[in-house]
Amino acid sequence: MNRNPQLNKQGELQHLLTTEGLPISILRHILDTAESFAGVTEREVKKIPLLRGKSVFNLFFEPSTRTRTTFEIAAKRLSADVINLNIAVSAQSKGETLLDTVNNLSAMHADMFVVRHAQSGAAHMIASHVRPDIHVINAGDGRHAHPTQALLDMFTIRRYKQDFHNLRVAIVGDILHSRVARSQIHALTTLGVPEVRVIAPKTILPSKVERLGVHVYHDMAQGLKDIDVLIMLRLQNERMVGASLPSSEEYFKYYGLTQEKLAMAKPDAIVMHPGPMNRGVEIDSAVADGKQSVILPQVTFGIAVRMAVMSILAGN
Amino acid sequence: MNRNPQLNKQGELQHLLTTEGLPISILRHILDTAESFAGVTEREVKKIPLLRGKSVFNLFFEPSTRTRTTFEIAAKRLSADVINLNIAVSAQSKGETLLDTVNNLSAMHADMFVVRHAQSGAAHMIASHVRPDIHVINAGDGRHAHPTQALLDMFTIRRYKQDFHNLRVAIVGDILHSRVARSQIHALTTLGVPEVRVIAPKTILPSKVERLGVHVYHDMAQGLKDIDVLIMLRLQNERMVGASLPSSEEYFKYYGLTQEKLAMAKPDAIVMHPGPMNRGVEIDSAVADGKQSVILPQVTFGIAVRMAVMSILAGN
Amino acid sequence: MNRNPQLNKQGELQHLLTTEGLPISILRHILDTAESFAGVTEREVKKIPLLRGKSVFNLFFEPSTRTRTTFEIAAKRLSADVINLNIAVSAQSKGETLLDTVNNLSAMHADMFVVRHAQSGAAHMIASHVRPDIHVINAGDGRHAHPTQALLDMFTIRRYKQDFHNLRVAIVGDILHSRVARSQIHALTTLGVPEVRVIAPKTILPSKVERLGVHVYHDMAQGLKDIDVLIMLRLQNERMVGASLPSSEEYFKYYGLTQEKLAMAKPDAIVMHPGPMNRGVEIDSAVADGKQSVILPQVTFGIAVRMAVMSILAGN
Repeated sequence: MNRNPQLNKQGELQHLLTTEGLPISILRHILDTAESFAGVTEREVKKIPLLRGKSVFNLFFEPSTRTRTTFEIAAKRLSADVINLNIAVSAQSKGETLLDTVNNLSAMHADMFVVRHAQSGAAHMIASHVRPDIHVINAGDGRHAHPTQALLDMFTIRRYKQDFHNLRVAIVGDILHSRVARSQIHALTTLGVPEVRVIAPKTILPSKVERLGVHVYHDMAQGLKDIDVLIMLRLQNERMVGASLPSSEEYFKYYGLTQEKLAMAKPDAIVMHPGPMNRGVEIDSAVADGKQSVILPQVTFGIAVRMAVMSILAGN
Repeated sequence: MNRNPQLNKQGELQHLLTTEGLPISILRHILDTAESFAGVTEREVKKIPLLRGKSVFNLFFEPSTRTRTTFEIAAKRLSADVINLNIAVSAQSKGETLLDTVNNLSAMHADMFVVRHAQSGAAHMIASHVRPDIHVINAGDGRHAHPTQALLDMFTIRRYKQDFHNLRVAIVGDILHSRVARSQIHALTTLGVPEVRVIAPKTILPSKVERLGVHVYHDMAQGLKDIDVLIMLRLQNERMVGASLPSSEEYFKYYGLTQEKLAMAKPDAIVMHPGPMNRGVEIDSAVADGKQSVILPQVTFGIAVRMAVMSILAGN
Repeated sequence: MNRNPQLNKQGELQHLLTTEGLPISILRHILDTAESFAGVTEREVKKIPLLRGKSVFNLFFEPSTRTRTTFEIAAKRLSADVINLNIAVSAQSKGETLLDTVNNLSAMHADMFVVRHAQSGAAHMIASHVRPDIHVINAGDGRHAHPTQALLDMFTIRRYKQDFHNLRVAIVGDILHSRVARSQIHALTTLGVPEVRVIAPKTILPSKVERLGVHVYHDMAQGLKDIDVLIMLRLQNERMVGASLPSSEEYFKYYGLTQEKLAMAKPDAIVMHPGPMNRGVEIDSAVADGKQSVILPQVTFGIAVRMAVMSILAGN
């Protein structure tokens, strides 16, 4: 029985919805394919005709210029036609159901949907209703998953650290509200990282987070010891209100990544951040722009990884 | 004398503004051309170089993601460059006149304008002022006309019923505010449909609607008898307020299309809707998703019909 | 020492930020290149593969459909991929700094940024931080500069008057708030126009404007005498409030360009306006649509000039 809604009957990638339960062979196939595309973005002419004549719909029910842009660039470099739909402001407000909207767009002979939605499970729901020749990519759903972000993070780690099997990775910050963290943890675990740590105050950690296979730390000094890879999460200002956190200054004091705190990790540790950064809240500018930061390479690799996902899906 | 602003001196289509007064030969030419494009959208590579190097401007003075998207897809499949302009939020707010806006865009060597505007007659006005090498397509103007929607509906009817000459067609709902209904009635009449009925409460019927050549019914049981094609119109919630209609529940009870009411039509009747649907208001989900519904094929055919209109205009 | 941030070490155009300090050889090179593109926009197929595979990012921190559209058309005619970013509504509102936004977009292997920003100096700041293979075009920054508008104005003047060396040019209106006027004055002076006049009430003239090399007039009759080229500036309604100006009627009476006032200039004087026009405020419709108006040709030439700037930058 095929219980994984992301795979077709041959066990190939049909949709990319989450890194949870994704076989290691598919994870590696995406990373290897992305390697071959990483060169394309540095060539003089950056176009490849792999998706020529295909229509990629960016369905953003939640605004995100940055993520939408990376998918748009990736699709255009594969020569696809890209249709940007900011659904929040149109059909939905006319009372149409999400499923009717998607069915209508499918009927226009879409080939791929890139979906961003504030509700967890939205991309899954869409994937389970589209025609079999349409592919769905989850570009972030609620607090649930953001698989292409996690994949570009894995690509970045592999580029700088080669092997996953001897790494200690720490994810620092608002794990509770982060779909990025969830997707990273699943990918890291599948790829064989022996020790994944989460470092945060209790108020922004999910209850029973240990079940995901991570080690919990509330103190940076302890949590950063012997760490090879640091992933800093964005702290959204709206979380600061009320009981969860006292103030951004207080947060920075205990959990903000400074050169001093970074010195507690291994000397060759790399620093990652999914962006957009709050400088002076979760990360100090000296670190963000410092030698150990790979934050901008992450963005560059994100194009290659999204090209890889799209081209693999289009071939299955 | 050339009194039809849509035709050039040779009697060819210069602009598509309304189905009213459009010769049957041109209607048929559009439908036949659309047949040839219907295959394109199902091919592996969906691009045709017919409009390569042409610039299609989507001028949407009224937002409509769905309609804008179908035109954008159609134009891109013809290899045109598409420029999306949401005019509501920019130049118009700077006090520029509609004509100055259009003259400026014309000066940028536009080849085609797809115009959506809340005011009836806007597309006509623009068509009467542009340079002779620019083509205007009305994508909906006020309560006046929405010709490409009517044409895709004709295409759908022809696909499922082959011949127009022995059909009874019923349009159900808010005829008063519907540019779609007006354009459908003109197209159906020209194509030789012998009996077109409108079914609605008096409050949402235009006065003297019979002059358009339709038969008026206020009762679904009578109106649906012997019907081959049912076209359900969207009931906009804002019409419900005040005197016109008591409530959406009440409306659904008398005019909402259920399986029971559908059974009053011919057993092989098809059900159409221009979308977006209000499920449970003008149409029941069992009908919308039922065997007689051709609502999603309408959307698919809409791409081919818009490709046909654009390619015919570009050739004239 | 290379003190001009627009030029690379070979003295070639690296960014287009302002007309101030731009060597006459580069101004002429842009105008000559634009001549060769002016024909392209009139051909049947308007595409040239010069920027194929290049990514042009329209970074509009301030909305402007008209300017964004001209750059989008110019880039698409050069076969570039165009990414439109309305930054106001996204990343910036998440608290990211302008520089982080730009660094992120650069990391996506952008080739060119077209930047519009409400703050003077924004394009300069971005240009001074991007990688050396990225080119920045200023599409308007605060009250500072709008070089492509000035260049298309120079192109228009050269088309209609051939030689700059025997011209009298008058710029009429709100010089104080106009980045367009500033860029025009620098370009006119560099190109050898012997007499540039500004005509306006004192309240909308910069103090010490004479330092820019212009002659100041407060009276139209005197200022328009012997003039070859009239450039009317848009009067923004928000300037009318308060002390600066009494009312738009009053302004029109003294400074609005009517046929009567135009008669005070040379009989073959041309009338220009950067748009969008306020008819009945700074210009009368009879003049705007009259024989001496070259306002729509300006728009057409704007595409060719922007194609020229982009292709020159891409080659350097």
